Amino acid sequence: MNISESERDALYKVIFSRRDVRSEFLPTPIPNDVLSNLLKAAHHAPSVGFMQPWDFIVVDNEQTKVAIKAGFTQANEQAESLFSADKRSQYKKLKLEGIIEAPLGICVTCDKSRNGPVVLGRTVKAEMDLYSAVCAIQNMWLAARAENLGLGWVSIIEDAVLRDVLGIPEHIDIIAYLCIGYVSEFKNKPELEEKGWLPRMDINDVIHFNRWSKT
Amino acid sequence: MNISESERDALYKVIFSRRDVRSEFLPTPIPNDVLSNLLKAAHHAPSVGFMQPWDFIVVDNEQTKVAIKAGFTQANEQAESLFSADKRSQYKKLKLEGIIEAPLGICVTCDKSRNGPVVLGRTVKAEMDLYSAVCAIQNMWLAARAENLGLGWVSIIEDAVLRDVLGIPEHIDIIAYLCIGYVSEFKNKPELEEKGWLPRMDINDVIHFNRWSKT
Repeated sequence: MNISESERDALYKVIFSRRDVRSEFLPTPIPNDVLSNLLKAAHHAPSVGFMQPWDFIVVDNEQTKVAIKAGFTQANEQAESLFSADKRSQYKKLKLEGIIEAPLGICVTCDKSRNGPVVLGRTVKAEMDLYSAVCAIQNMWLAARAENLGLGWVSIIEDAVLRDVLGIPEHIDIIAYLCIGYVSEFKNKPELEEKGWLPRMDINDVIHFNRWSKT
Repeated sequence: MNISESERDALYKVIFSRRDVRSEFLPTPIPNDVLSNLLKAAHHAPSVGFMQPWDFIVVDNEQTKVAIKAGFTQANEQAESLFSADKRSQYKKLKLEGIIEAPLGICVTCDKSRNGPVVLGRTVKAEMDLYSAVCAIQNMWLAARAENLGLGWVSIIEDAVLRDVLGIPEHIDIIAYLCIGYVSEFKNKPELEEKGWLPRMDINDVIHFNRWSKT
C-alpha cells in the first residue's frame, strides 16, 4: 500500500501542530465514535512481541476527576519546592493540567504479565513493554490532533493515587494519565517554548553519524 | 489550525499500515532530505518539560553494522533458550532484524542529565524522559511509513554492545536500535499475527470505564 505525497504531508501537519494541552479545553462532549477512533489508533501501535500490554481506563465521572485532581495538587506542591527560587516563581504560574475541564481522561497502563513471562523481544530489555504502551500513547496523541482534539499528559500524580482511585491492580504498571477534549485553540508553539521555560534545541545538536560525537 | 477529514484519514491510513519490518528491506539508498524529514518528525515529539532528551546516531557504516549484528546474534542465542520447546522451534524460524540489509540504522538515546537535575513533569515519575524518547521513535516510525520506508525496532541487543560500537557515554540511556529502508512490500498484518505467534486482542478487552473492570 502506497502513501501519497499529500497523505505524507497530512501526517507531518498533524505531527508539527500537535500540542500538550492544559489550558484550552472546552466542555464540548466527545462523540463515542471519535473516542473509538482514538482507542483504535492506540491499539494499533507497535508492541514488543505483539504482546499488546496496554489497557485504557476512560474517565468521565466527575468525582473520579476530582480525586485525581487532588492527587495532582498534592504532588505539584512537592514538585514546586524542588526548583530554584527563580525557576519556582515561573513554575507556579504555569497551568500544568486540565483534569477537571477536559471532558475525558484516559489512564494508560502496562500489564507485564500478559501472554506469559517470556516475551519475544523483551528478553534483553525488560522495559520494552512499557515502551510499547508509550507508542500507543503517541498514536493516540496524533489521532486526537487529527480529530481536532487536544491532549495533555499529566505526569505529576503519584501512581498510588491513580491506583487507588481507578482500582488498578498492584501488578499493573501505570504509564500515563491523559486529558482529552476539544480546545479553544492550538498554540503555534509548545507552551513551554513560548513562555521561555526552555528553547527548542537545534536539531543538528542531537544528530550523530556512526559514532557519538559530543563531549 | 484545523485538520480536515481527508488529512485525518491519511493519519489513520499511516497508523494502520505501519509495520515492524525485518525481512523486506531493499538496498535502495534513502535520500538525505527524506532522512531529514524522519529526524525532524522525531525532534517534534512531545517531551517532558520540553527537555528534548533524545539523540539520534545514524549508522550507515558497514563495519559498524556488522558489529551490531554480532551483538544481536549473541543476544538472540541466549533468548532462544528461554522459550519452551514448542515455542522455541517457531522462534528460531522468525527473522527478527534487518541490521545488515537496511541501508540505515538509527540508535535513539536519552540524556537524563539534559537541562539540569530538576525537570518539569519528571519530579514524580523518573522515567518520563525515557518515555519522551519513545514518543520520538513513534513519530519517526509513522514518518517512515508515510515516506514508504519500512522501520524495524531491534530490541535483542545488549546495551553494552551498542555503547561500545557507537561510543555512547555511560550517562546516556540507550532506548532503541532501528533499521530503516525501502521495502519490497508492507504486509497486510503484523508478521507475528500472520504467523500465529499471538493473535490481535479484542479491543473491548483492553478498555475500562472509570474503574479497572477485569479480574
